Amino acid sequence: MPTPPSCSPPLRVLMGPGPSDVAPEVLAAQARPTVGHLDPWFLEVMDQVRGMLRVAFGTENELTLPMSGTGSAGMETCIVNAVSPGDRVLVGVNGVFGGRMVELARRAGAEVVAATAPWGRAFAPEDLRRAANGGRFDVICVVHAETSTGVSQPLDGLRGLADACGALLLIDAVTSLGGMPVELDRHGVDLAYSGTQKCLSAPPGLAPVSLSARAGERLSARTAPVQSWYLDLSLIRNYWGGPRAYHHTAPVNQIYALHEALRLALEEGLPARFARHRRLGGALQAGLEAMGLELVVPPAERLTQLTAVHIPAGVSDKAVRGRLLSEFGLEIGGGLGDLAGRAWRIGLMGAACTRRNVTLCLSALSSALRAEGFTPRADPLAAADAAL
Amino acid sequence: MPTPPSCSPPLRVLMGPGPSDVAPEVLAAQARPTVGHLDPWFLEVMDQVRGMLRVAFGTENELTLPMSGTGSAGMETCIVNAVSPGDRVLVGVNGVFGGRMVELARRAGAEVVAATAPWGRAFAPEDLRRAANGGRFDVICVVHAETSTGVSQPLDGLRGLADACGALLLIDAVTSLGGMPVELDRHGVDLAYSGTQKCLSAPPGLAPVSLSARAGERLSARTAPVQSWYLDLSLIRNYWGGPRAYHHTAPVNQIYALHEALRLALEEGLPARFARHRRLGGALQAGLEAMGLELVVPPAERLTQLTAVHIPAGVSDKAVRGRLLSEFGLEIGGGLGDLAGRAWRIGLMGAACTRRNVTLCLSALSSALRAEGFTPRADPLAAADAAL
Repeated sequence: MPTPPSCSPPLRVLMGPGPSDVAPEVLAAQARPTVGHLDPWFLEVMDQVRGMLRVAFGTENELTLPMSGTGSAGMETCIVNAVSPGDRVLVGVNGVFGGRMVELARRAGAEVVAATAPWGRAFAPEDLRRAANGGRFDVICVVHAETSTGVSQPLDGLRGLADACGALLLIDAVTSLGGMPVELDRHGVDLAYSGTQKCLSAPPGLAPVSLSARAGERLSARTAPVQSWYLDLSLIRNYWGGPRAYHHTAPVNQIYALHEALRLALEEGLPARFARHRRLGGALQAGLEAMGLELVVPPAERLTQLTAVHIPAGVSDKAVRGRLLSEFGLEIGGGLGDLAGRAWRIGLMGAACTRRNVTLCLSALSSALRAEGFTPRADPLAAADAAL
Repeated sequence: MPTPPSCSPPLRVLMGPGPSDVAPEVLAAQARPTVGHLDPWFLEVMDQVRGMLRVAFGTENELTLPMSGTGSAGMETCIVNAVSPGDRVLVGVNGVFGGRMVELARRAGAEVVAATAPWGRAFAPEDLRRAANGGRFDVICVVHAETSTGVSQPLDGLRGLADACGALLLIDAVTSLGGMPVELDRHGVDLAYSGTQKCLSAPPGLAPVSLSARAGERLSARTAPVQSWYLDLSLIRNYWGGPRAYHHTAPVNQIYALHEALRLALEEGLPARFARHRRLGGALQAGLEAMGLELVVPPAERLTQLTAVHIPAGVSDKAVRGRLLSEFGLEIGGGLGDLAGRAWRIGLMGAACTRRNVTLCLSALSSALRAEGFTPRADPLAAADAAL
């Protein structure tokens, strides 16, 4: 095999379900010289990252740190540290990622009860309470922002349910962190995980997690070892704090990138950042509806940073996404699971959440749809502007 | 908490057990614009990475790819994909990383037999055969390059032992890949894992792994699911090849970095690269011995890319490493496990493996030792030069 040339990526606009566009400052931070994972200077950077993650998560949790893997590693981290074999776990399933939690909890030896809601709908606390059916559970899991459907799951009332069941409350915050309020402490969440490549707009590769004191005590009291050594927080917390004991070699440069991404988010200010996502996501959604496209999620339950939209009858999923990519350098996401081939997922996350991108996406999508025989009903740009 | 300033790493020379210095070209590649993990352009980059990894591993194995975690995630990948609950696993333990394999195999439900050798010594095939004691095993594990001691483990004869036991042969190639011949196919190795931050000189964060056809068949025939979903190669192989099915969001920018690091290694040429590590590592070792320091490993069993050296009696580990770091910006590693506080580990890996660094390290170490009351016996630089 001849050695390939140095890779030279095409310049994309990333409006899929993640990765989102990464700010130049974040890419530059990631390219700074590598230091050792126990370098005294790096230990300070780690502390700063933990501090900024706490702000983003809305928590005082001591055990808040980025795991050395992607968001799915964050899911596995929370599950395997919270679940011991034989535990009873209740999972709210209304999309791919709830389903994935069921699978992971089973692999961790749990007896799982899945509460289901239609794809594209949120749970009311009473839906979950009905599924719990008065039983005891060790962990209750919900997806705060379902990346497969664009549903926003309210967290109100879930702490009460968890208390009634004797359970830890675990949430998937992959697509919410940095784009909307998460507020772990206000909602009494015990375990949360996220990814860096969504609303934080760092490259994919790290999974911020946060565990409450209650979850940390449950971990300390385990009799069965955490089944994953790599993701065992009872070991990893001694590297990110305390004795700074070697566990694995931290991904130093990725942590530089996350540090910079968090800095940018906090400099913007979280309330302003959340408002930007709401305002521009709302405009995008107004534009999509003006075109005559049907959104998957009813208005009151919609995320704004990620929008799932039904593919119109007779339009080819692949042809439209292919045109967007090849003619406009624009990536939007395909559907996942039940929505594969039936929906697109359009992200407006972090650095990609700009008015320019709302306009680009609506215009390019109109063009691609026309080329595939679908005529937009009305001018999406006027509708988007009106919604701003 | 006030938002911290952008991080600005000190310029270190990384001569610990990893991470090693990363070439500017590799840092620059990592900072290129992020694209989607299913972007057609990126799928080609992935194929190129797999092809170059095969060359570095010395294999034709189809199932060769970088896992989205550090070297320890590579270890866990190989263990959890190879081991089913109740399996019998034989592990050669002569340092920290053999011990870690025992721990991981147990967490995967294996019945483990540990063959032991003194820290700092390699196994002869008959040592392992004696430990196997005529029994059947499902997996036999050895550490090709023990990062905790600097021992080089010959692989000759291990395939025969594995065949006699009915076992897959699994090796830790974290510190060997890219710095010395690994040659999986020649040695009949079934599973191997490595890291990017050692002799490949990419930033830490990815774990190249390779599985033989036999290991892949064993995986396909499993009845128990792989206990880690995140590391389940029966799923991940459908993203890196075949249907390109989404599993998790690949760490795109890290894969750019690995691509560039592999490119640089292949452009140098593996034989030339291995010779560089041998020659310069030998010179470093000659210099250390000339100073009157005792190496942990006897000459015939030594790695040259990583050298463990006993800390002279009466000399403070922390004071010497502190001086090297603060006065010379030079990182060397402390001891691990049985050697904690008793040895230093000096790496000469990848981009850090230069004659300049041999000279710097010997000179700076002499200076730091003198400052701590230890007088080097002879001029290490003359001895190093003579060994070149």
